[in-house]
Formats: sequence, structure tokens, C-alpha cells
Amino acid sequence: MARDVVTAAILVIGDEILSGRTRDVNVGYIADYLTRMGIDVREARMIPDVEGEIVDALDAVRERYDYVFTTGGIGPTHDDITADSVARAFGVAISVNDEAVAMLKERYGGDTELNEARLRMARIPHGASLVRNKVSSAPGFRIGNVFVMAGVPKIMQAMLDEIAPTLEGGRPLRSRTVAVDLKEGDVAGPLRAVQERFPETMIGSYPFFEDTGRFGTRIVVRARDEALLEEAEAAVKAMADDLAGAGDAA
Amino acid sequence: MARDVVTAAILVIGDEILSGRTRDVNVGYIADYLTRMGIDVREARMIPDVEGEIVDALDAVRERYDYVFTTGGIGPTHDDITADSVARAFGVAISVNDEAVAMLKERYGGDTELNEARLRMARIPHGASLVRNKVSSAPGFRIGNVFVMAGVPKIMQAMLDEIAPTLEGGRPLRSRTVAVDLKEGDVAGPLRAVQERFPETMIGSYPFFEDTGRFGTRIVVRARDEALLEEAEAAVKAMADDLAGAGDAA
Repeated sequence: MARDVVTAAILVIGDEILSGRTRDVNVGYIADYLTRMGIDVREARMIPDVEGEIVDALDAVRERYDYVFTTGGIGPTHDDITADSVARAFGVAISVNDEAVAMLKERYGGDTELNEARLRMARIPHGASLVRNKVSSAPGFRIGNVFVMAGVPKIMQAMLDEIAPTLEGGRPLRSRTVAVDLKEGDVAGPLRAVQERFPETMIGSYPFFEDTGRFGTRIVVRARDEALLEEAEAAVKAMADDLAGAGDAA
Repeated sequence: MARDVVTAAILVIGDEILSGRTRDVNVGYIADYLTRMGIDVREARMIPDVEGEIVDALDAVRERYDYVFTTGGIGPTHDDITADSVARAFGVAISVNDEAVAMLKERYGGDTELNEARLRMARIPHGASLVRNKVSSAPGFRIGNVFVMAGVPKIMQAMLDEIAPTLEGGRPLRSRTVAVDLKEGDVAGPLRAVQERFPETMIGSYPFFEDTGRFGTRIVVRARDEALLEEAEAAVKAMADDLAGAGDAA
């Protein structure tokens, strides 16, 4: 039977993210993608290219969530240590995988040599299955509930497209957004009352400031049940109308 | 005596980040800012607006690193629970802070009511000191080695400017970037040899693909010692010249 709630964590692996040199765009992309599939991302961590850190982070999240998605550290250079770290976390051996070599040979071997460094990209932990992608010949892999993907956004996105059909989604957390031309501090009191009336929904509030000078508050209601969601959304809208009416009268 | 290495972690707090609705831009900004000050960001975590999760994450990082910076969850609405969570993590009480109320009064009280919800933004853990900012009247705060900042980027950035002079920076990790028109897989072998010759530097390698069709590899060398950095950079450049020469001859 399908479950209502399916959870995931994201691990972004790479010194370049923590130094600020490269701005991560993968967390937002993966979070949005999984949310649409009914998978709740419960946390994301950005960690350095240090084996002990990668192992510790994997151990902290892989027991706790249904799925774990990693990005980064699977290229051909000496600082690409994700595959070895994953093998260590799972306590399995790692070696050059024949199927992965065959994938690399489809692309390399002509003008571009399939050298020792590139063969490193075929090192796969024992017991893992490969994740192909349409952009690069180097595969990612799945071991247990952990999916190991590239850090380059286009390649990661192509891998996620391959992985998606194999995932079990939950009942999607649906959301409705109500944007109001009111300050967050004026919305807050009545909004708390709405949240208390609908404890099974999650209501968030986000101030916005547009370049045009318009500002206000975006209220986001989330729930798995469509009828409940509509009821809570209607309550938020009624609240906003009340507040706007009070403002007009003042 | 100043220390060579000063470390930090970043906690991004907010459901909207993990749902993919809002793309985080704060980690990159803070990481870049701190790196320039000689503070090494060792990890970043994105966690939901759930008190237990915030407390656990704070406990995991505040003993381990010199500084912790949080963003998000200090507004006036019911889902803003960061201040209460920080108080719980530190085992201290929290109440409305007179100094914070005075700051809020500078702005509110005329056209805009300083209502109960806005007074929530003056709830500060006991023992904390306030962090003003030039954009909003609501303060962040510091308690122990934890700095609690807003999630709205402009406000967070203004708070970081206030905090920066109070931080002890380390010896900055300097970096040099060498961009080469070579594939990462061709650079990887010789680059590993350079890394082994300069074990006290950190050498990273990042493929790039430009819209013009140009592609190649950015090699980033990092070290605290300027002379060492220059030596390693020269070795990377010599390596790149050798490879380019070999390519021309082929």
C-alpha cells in the first residue's frame, strides 16, 4: 500500500560551495522536483570533500529518511571522493565496474583517451546499481536508499529524470498561495487564529518586496487533503478581506 | 594570539527552502563573506520550522565550530520559532526585551501599530545581545557563539555587516584560479601529482561549459601561506602548459 508520507534528505558535497565560490542551485531544483512527486525533503546539508564528513553525514541521514540524494564529487580528479566515501559508509568494497566502463567507452576511446583518471569515474561500490544520464557518459549510482549524482546541474538533472520513475512518491503535499497587500505584522495575529483552526495544515507567511515598491505578504497553506486545503485557503482569504476592509474603513 | 583557523557553520531555517518554493541565496552570500574574513565555513544545513529539529541542529554544530550563523524564522508570525528554539537549545528563558521594544518603537507606533504579533519580534533569549541592522527595526541577536539573523536577504546582509567587526577572523585561506581549455579527465592525472607535491594546499577542479561552446576546467588552489600558494599555482600553470604543448604536438 502506498504511504502518505515519504521523506528525503539532500547532501551537497563540495568545498567550492562552502567557500562561496560556487553558488549551489541543486538543492532548490531537487527540493522542487521531489515535492511535486510527493516526497518531503526534510533537510539538506552542504559538506566538504572530506571522507569522514561525508561518511558521518550519510550515516546521520540514511537511516532517518526514506531516500538520500547526494550531488558532487564523482568526477575524475583526486578531490572526487564521494564514491569511495559512500562505499565506506555502507561497509562495502569499491572497484572499477564493467558496466560503467562500457558506458564510458561509448564516448571515450576515440579522440579522447579513456585514461586512468577517467576510469576513476567507473569506480562503483559493490552492490550498487548504475544511474545513466543523457548528458554525460559517466554514471551515478544507487546503493540502498542513497542516490549518488553529479554536481554539474545539467548532469544532475538528467540523472534525477532517470531516478524519478524508480521512486515511490507519497501523497503530494499540495499548496495554495494567497498574496496580500498587507504587512506581515498586521496579518500575523489573525493568521495564527487560522492556523489554530486548521491544525492539520501548515501555514507559512513570507514578506515580499517588489522592485516596483509594492510589498506585502505571501501566505502559503499546505496540506495533503484537497478539501481541507480549500477550506483553509478560503479562511485565509476571508481573513485577508476582513483586514483589507478594516484598513479601508480606517 | 590570533588563531590561524577559525570555523563556522550556517543553519538556514525555513520550510519554504525545503519545499523548493524559495531558493536560498543566503548560504552563498555568507560563505563568501566569511571566507574573505578568514573564517572557514565547514558545513551548512537547511532545516524546517520545527523546534526539535532546530535545537538538534544547533546542538550538533555550536560545540563543534567557532561560530554559528542562522537565517530565518525571526518574524512576527506563528511559524517564526527560531528565537524560542535557540533559547531552548541554550537552556535559558526568553521574554520580551526592553531594548528590542525600543528599537521597534522607533519605527512602529505611528501609522503602523506595534501590536502583539510585532512585539513577538522583541522576544529575545536571556543573556543574548541584540544585533541591529540598517534595513529593518527588528533586531537579530547573539547568544554564545550563535548569531541569529533574518531570512530576508537584504536584512540578513545588513545584520552581517553589524556582526562582522565583532568576529575574530583567522588567517585567510587565499585562492588562485587557473582556467584551462582542457577536459577535466585530461587534467586529472597530472593534477593529482601536483596535489601530492603540495600536500598543504587544497587543489580543486571544476569543469565549466560556457554558452559560447567553450569548455574547460577551472583549477582552484587554496592555501593560507602566500608563498606556498604562488609555488603551487606556478606548478599548476606549468602542468597546463605541458598538457597544451602535448596537445599541439599530437
